[in-house]
Amino acid sequence: MTLSWRLAATDGAARAGVLHTAHGEVATPVFMPVGTAGTVKAMTADSVRATGAKLILGNTYHLMLRPGAERVARLGGLHRMMDWPGPILTDSGGFQVMSLSKLRKLDADGVTFRSHLDGSAHRLTPERSIEIQYLLDATITMALDECTPFPATEPEARVSMELSMRWARLSREAFVPRDGYGLFGIVQGSVYPDLRRRSAGALTDIGFEGYAVGGLAVGEGQPMMFDTLDVTVPHLPADRPRYLMGVGTPDDLLGAVARGIDMFDCVIPTRAGRTARAYTRAGVFNLRNARFADDGGPLDAGCACPLCTRHSRAYLHHLFRCEEMLGPMLLTWHNIQYYQDLMAGIRAAIAAGRLDAFAAVARAGWQAGDAAA
Amino acid sequence: MTLSWRLAATDGAARAGVLHTAHGEVATPVFMPVGTAGTVKAMTADSVRATGAKLILGNTYHLMLRPGAERVARLGGLHRMMDWPGPILTDSGGFQVMSLSKLRKLDADGVTFRSHLDGSAHRLTPERSIEIQYLLDATITMALDECTPFPATEPEARVSMELSMRWARLSREAFVPRDGYGLFGIVQGSVYPDLRRRSAGALTDIGFEGYAVGGLAVGEGQPMMFDTLDVTVPHLPADRPRYLMGVGTPDDLLGAVARGIDMFDCVIPTRAGRTARAYTRAGVFNLRNARFADDGGPLDAGCACPLCTRHSRAYLHHLFRCEEMLGPMLLTWHNIQYYQDLMAGIRAAIAAGRLDAFAAVARAGWQAGDAAA
Repeated sequence: MTLSWRLAATDGAARAGVLHTAHGEVATPVFMPVGTAGTVKAMTADSVRATGAKLILGNTYHLMLRPGAERVARLGGLHRMMDWPGPILTDSGGFQVMSLSKLRKLDADGVTFRSHLDGSAHRLTPERSIEIQYLLDATITMALDECTPFPATEPEARVSMELSMRWARLSREAFVPRDGYGLFGIVQGSVYPDLRRRSAGALTDIGFEGYAVGGLAVGEGQPMMFDTLDVTVPHLPADRPRYLMGVGTPDDLLGAVARGIDMFDCVIPTRAGRTARAYTRAGVFNLRNARFADDGGPLDAGCACPLCTRHSRAYLHHLFRCEEMLGPMLLTWHNIQYYQDLMAGIRAAIAAGRLDAFAAVARAGWQAGDAAA
Repeated sequence: MTLSWRLAATDGAARAGVLHTAHGEVATPVFMPVGTAGTVKAMTADSVRATGAKLILGNTYHLMLRPGAERVARLGGLHRMMDWPGPILTDSGGFQVMSLSKLRKLDADGVTFRSHLDGSAHRLTPERSIEIQYLLDATITMALDECTPFPATEPEARVSMELSMRWARLSREAFVPRDGYGLFGIVQGSVYPDLRRRSAGALTDIGFEGYAVGGLAVGEGQPMMFDTLDVTVPHLPADRPRYLMGVGTPDDLLGAVARGIDMFDCVIPTRAGRTARAYTRAGVFNLRNARFADDGGPLDAGCACPLCTRHSRAYLHHLFRCEEMLGPMLLTWHNIQYYQDLMAGIRAAIAAGRLDAFAAVARAGWQAGDAAA
């Protein structure tokens, strides 16, 4: 049986459930830490596990270039290589090809590009993307799509979406079904409700184990992102998980969960952890700020991570000021812990039918902290 | 009672013993990981503990500049700040002032210098160095000395050594005795046996809880370093721990232990860990080398660290190639683990009266690995 998702509770449009995979179960809504090149940056696999994270993301584009998909397969797959026996979702590589690579050239069958690392030539097609993700041993494989740039005119968005739908069919045909593994299609259509509806319908007709909403968080802003979710999610099958790609801030997560999204990934907590930005119950802080130099208190008194239970804000400030690696290490850990705690709170709130109240309390905490800062 | 050391076993000139401190016991011979600025670079305190390390080193020079000794004291001391309840030895700052700072000016009472970080003016005297180490809450405080540069003429080395002996007396007077805390004097005298003997005698007359051999590993080479130990160690009190500062390679440790040294510190394992150099039972490897790209084996099959038990050489190579922080994190952990395992082996070998055989096996392993590389 392929990967499946079972609904456990609803609260308005929000859903709590469990994803059953070949590599273990995952309670949803879930946030996936991003492990771009086979490592969640600045964290050991043990520390990722310690935050409660169950599902992580790997990047096809990065891994096909280094160390190479065939090499990962020879090393026993991505799970074994990075010491993550749990489930892994890999993106299709399409987004990074368009945002990172050089001299890319799109055609009806795929995209030819040069590596941003060494200029070497590569080609990514739906079939090759699926093959790479097979070689990586991804638990959840993403269909190759074109992430429509923002802004796009309606005709541009339509052409782009239709290309992605063609690739979705080719991806489905290329995917090798295995017990507990699955393939997700990706809805495109920019901010145009009719295109989103048609894209969702086309994907549903093909049939996937899960449905992602792509082409958002690319500059359209939170209100337009939420509006697009409102006109997209109702057209997705109710019995399959829904994944909002590349999102987002804690506030984005609350809003998207309330609109029926089950899965998220984003580099925010890891990237912020390397640049001294802390996500906490009292909002966002920049630990480089001199006001923390003598602050002997914990970063976030409600957090159980090693940084918050064993060190002071002053120590973290010191580490960043000295450019010590331990600063990014501890703060990334904390940020991922915060995101995981937020998702656990969201899941419990949905189960208790009080997501609105939970979100209100979380937002009040962020604002109170900002006021005190 | 001040910090004490008890002899447990001897094997030739080599000694095994236990250091009793206010912050716990430490089996000797011991290697201290270097925690320059209040962090063993690229490691959490938990990972340092996991290697079996019991005693770490902090740097007075770095900590007096950032975050500042008074600030560390306000934060509860270095143990609390860095989550290391175990014993900490701090150097006096003298070595770094001479090697790192700008516009330094030495006089009979101390040294005036400008910070290598921001050019700010500072003064370090024996009294201030001891006060800083008190503020840091160092378990073992080092007397301020001048690390005589190499090479030095005999008259230059004598003047320098006599200055250090004067500072040793002033350091002793300034030190505040506390139960389980101690002050170590530092033997100088460059490579001149008579100066070393006189320095050892002068320090013994003053009386310290331990005796360090300074001014070595500064370019004289291993043979001259060992020769100097041979003419110095016999003049040190047999009932006190002996500390060879800033040393060294695994082979240096074997040779110095055999000459009666009990304590070591060195940046080699941590610095090497950040530059892809692995210390293993089969010698030293540079993990950036392309020959590791497809090597699915463990870095060191005899090692129990997370890198060696859960990852391949190929993965480590990949991490360094991608400049992922996890590379330095895992390899630093391994290198410290290797050094701790080596010291544990040395202690067991001394207790069993077979240090020579242990050293021969270790050296044969390093050479066999080099041959295979």
